[in-house]
Amino acid sequence: MPNSKVLPLVESEASEGVAPCCPPLTERPFTAQEAETAARMFKALGDPVRLRLFSAVASHEGGEACVCDISDVGVSQPTVSHHLKKLKDAGLLTSERRGTWVYYRVESSVLAAMGRLLALTPVKAA
Amino acid sequence: MPNSKVLPLVESEASEGVAPCCPPLTERPFTAQEAETAARMFKALGDPVRLRLFSAVASHEGGEACVCDISDVGVSQPTVSHHLKKLKDAGLLTSERRGTWVYYRVESSVLAAMGRLLALTPVKAA
Repeated sequence: MPNSKVLPLVESEASEGVAPCCPPLTERPFTAQEAETAARMFKALGDPVRLRLFSAVASHEGGEACVCDISDVGVSQPTVSHHLKKLKDAGLLTSERRGTWVYYRVESSVLAAMGRLLALTPVKAA
Repeated sequence: MPNSKVLPLVESEASEGVAPCCPPLTERPFTAQEAETAARMFKALGDPVRLRLFSAVASHEGGEACVCDISDVGVSQPTVSHHLKKLKDAGLLTSERRGTWVYYRVESSVLAAMGRLLALTPVKAA
């Protein structure tokens, strides 16, 4: 998957005219396309090391972190880089080089969209 | 993984005295144990067919559904059963046999705990 591939979790698909993905999971059954989009995001967070790196960036001062700030997760530097790339490919992080270091930032709009997926809607009466 | 294995996402681990897993991802870096627990849940939702089945159950009347209600996801019945078992193993669904059919129910407390993971906390000043 190329680095520039970002999921349309918070953008409408102009070519298809659909609303931004996705409704709360409890609202109605997901369509195949909604499920493809949302599953990719969940899958990216479905690894303990990636989840630790993601929470390290998300909770860091200013909502961004240098690799030098977040590498203390018990795996090698190449493995850290591999997982950060996966988080970027899934559209959960963006990165920017400043001098020697690459800084990672959480896409808060994506986090909000994922939170919306898991929002509880009233259970329909049986 | 045995059927009875349910993740401690919403229960405290009595043996270790820790609080229920897990804080919002933006609050502080996850510990290894928190990441293990939460990643298993995200991984279970990281498949499009499982996500469609999960949303079909979650959005069904009364918050539960019979297999007969939710099998319209374009895969074979054995594949549906396989994915429903994975969702059960991850603690996201419970099931109960009533007469001919097995009914699946979403663990709303687990859904709430996952929503909390993705809750936005204020970004710390840099």
